[in-house]
Amino acid sequence: MNNLLEKPMLLHLETKSNSLGDLTFFENQVLPFFEVKRVFWLTAVPDRGKRGLHAHIKEKQVLVCLQGTVTVRLEALSREKLEYKLNTANKGLYVPEMHWLEVEFSANSILLVLCDQEFSEADYIRDKRAFEDDQRKY
Amino acid sequence: MNNLLEKPMLLHLETKSNSLGDLTFFENQVLPFFEVKRVFWLTAVPDRGKRGLHAHIKEKQVLVCLQGTVTVRLEALSREKLEYKLNTANKGLYVPEMHWLEVEFSANSILLVLCDQEFSEADYIRDKRAFEDDQRKY
Repeated sequence: MNNLLEKPMLLHLETKSNSLGDLTFFENQVLPFFEVKRVFWLTAVPDRGKRGLHAHIKEKQVLVCLQGTVTVRLEALSREKLEYKLNTANKGLYVPEMHWLEVEFSANSILLVLCDQEFSEADYIRDKRAFEDDQRKY
Repeated sequence: MNNLLEKPMLLHLETKSNSLGDLTFFENQVLPFFEVKRVFWLTAVPDRGKRGLHAHIKEKQVLVCLQGTVTVRLEALSREKLEYKLNTANKGLYVPEMHWLEVEFSANSILLVLCDQEFSEADYIRDKRAFEDDQRKY
């Protein structure tokens, strides 16, 4: 695997704007190694609510904040910690597999998540201590 | 082609709700004949702004209103006219190919569109008269 792909990165997504609003799109050409297999969206999260709190073994995701502000905190296997504020509908955050993810919402935020895998509970690491074991072995 | 698939239909998408908000998802199992190849979202559309105003030759779409209300008006090759109000993040509207589409936005609405094709300008019929020609030939 190309190690470059294992790092989170911010994507500037193309927006077509005119007097009738903004159209922003993601297609597989944006990240040629990424195929959208599942899409989910988070709405009605209370102010300061924290979602995520897991890592994925295989799944890669792209996060887009369509409204409001979310703060994304990532922890890599290398123990590197990264924090991103997403607050515009044309910024995507690519989150590779094996990153512990915490997303803190501001009120009325909407988060869109594009995934390169179908849902599989077996792909989730939900126990932080298990993830820390993986960090120690890394 | 199975004619059943050529009719628009409302999809009730699964939502996982708890005190931390609502997670609604779409994956290919929802519509087994549908693979997400492109995703786009419309934001900052003015109140009563109309988007769409085209038909697709091949592309099928699923529309989800993540916030606010959009009124979707469809016209089939058979000249049948259908109107849907989308105002909840767990309702998807499946729009098959060859339906003239008009979407009217209320203020602050956000529309998510899942597409089964990559973008291709050649797939658009943007001239209503050309679409009406297709209706006459149908």
